[in-house]
Amino acid sequence: MFLFCTAIPLHTTAPIEIIDVTMHIKDIFHQNRVQNGQITIYSAHSTAFVAINECESMLQQDMVTFLTQLVPQHQDFKHNRQPIDGRLNAHSHLLGLFMNASETIPIADGELLLGRWQSIFFIELDGPREERTLRIQIIGER
Amino acid sequence: MFLFCTAIPLHTTAPIEIIDVTMHIKDIFHQNRVQNGQITIYSAHSTAFVAINECESMLQQDMVTFLTQLVPQHQDFKHNRQPIDGRLNAHSHLLGLFMNASETIPIADGELLLGRWQSIFFIELDGPREERTLRIQIIGER
Amino acid sequence: MFLFCTAIPLHTTAPIEIIDVTMHIKDIFHQNRVQNGQITIYSAHSTAFVAINECESMLQQDMVTFLTQLVPQHQDFKHNRQPIDGRLNAHSHLLGLFMNASETIPIADGELLLGRWQSIFFIELDGPREERTLRIQIIGER
Repeated sequence: MFLFCTAIPLHTTAPIEIIDVTMHIKDIFHQNRVQNGQITIYSAHSTAFVAINECESMLQQDMVTFLTQLVPQHQDFKHNRQPIDGRLNAHSHLLGLFMNASETIPIADGELLLGRWQSIFFIELDGPREERTLRIQIIGER
Repeated sequence: MFLFCTAIPLHTTAPIEIIDVTMHIKDIFHQNRVQNGQITIYSAHSTAFVAINECESMLQQDMVTFLTQLVPQHQDFKHNRQPIDGRLNAHSHLLGLFMNASETIPIADGELLLGRWQSIFFIELDGPREERTLRIQIIGER
Repeated sequence: MFLFCTAIPLHTTAPIEIIDVTMHIKDIFHQNRVQNGQITIYSAHSTAFVAINECESMLQQDMVTFLTQLVPQHQDFKHNRQPIDGRLNAHSHLLGLFMNASETIPIADGELLLGRWQSIFFIELDGPREERTLRIQIIGER
């Protein structure tokens, strides 16, 4: 059984930001390839998550607009009355209820089974942030 | 370590369609049973996803209505201005932000631990489509 | 390959309830520790799910308010016309479409890689319930 875990450090520059990490993850897979197994992508945050979706710059702009409008930041949230870290981020946590901390992609016959139009995204919901961490874990047999 | 990966081919017939794949997955499990491990269900698409929920025909109709109304197709989305594939599907990708590409179900003592009211669904958000692929992977020990 | 699966029994006391199960899961991990691997948290229900988010009591209240308002219970849902179990819970199933039945957290070098602000929650969407079950599975190498 082969097990490998690493981290991709990220910094974000906008309140909501959709970052394509597909190439990073493919590089990690090619350097730590298994013949059969799976790769798990894990966001170690409570206001940043993982999504698998299409990479197209106009679509990423639509995503930011959609998320911004669905749960506007400035509402009377209790979490924002005495913010521990000075951030008014209740809206980020609420959007996060509908997101994924982890996604798992199968690997079979040496191939990462990402679909043709699928890219892997880190979804920042409470940026900008200097230090974000995305965990990448490979499990399987070489 | 036992590893097995296969695909369920699907074709969809409506813009939004909720397809119960539980029996397919149970069949795959019974033919490739492990004593302990897990099964991962993975949608290889950026506008179709996986959900675990209750199978009841009226509820599946409610789901289609709910998803259709929450993010209506005809809005001024940037992604729809020059669609790569001719599809006005920004709304499908946006709904997909809240969905799961993968779900993982534990297997213990030879039993797939699906709860009493749980069924496994393929969620088509941009149909109809001739060819969709759901990946099923079993990991564990026999 | 080490495989361990157990269940946390839960009972819930409100229609929507956000229960922090982080300590339970850390205890299970410390009693069944692997050096490298992962832990999968799985809700065996179709109206209760798993989330990873921040534990802060005001935020948990915001979550309940948010979920209650986003999909109000009393609408003309078809699923509620002849409820199998007497429960008007279409709204719970619809919210569940956006939630996770499972989340997977990596374990590396003997450490569960939960982020600093991350807690693990059981999300009850159709309570109160006498008996709910959260499955916890550890896979890896000791």
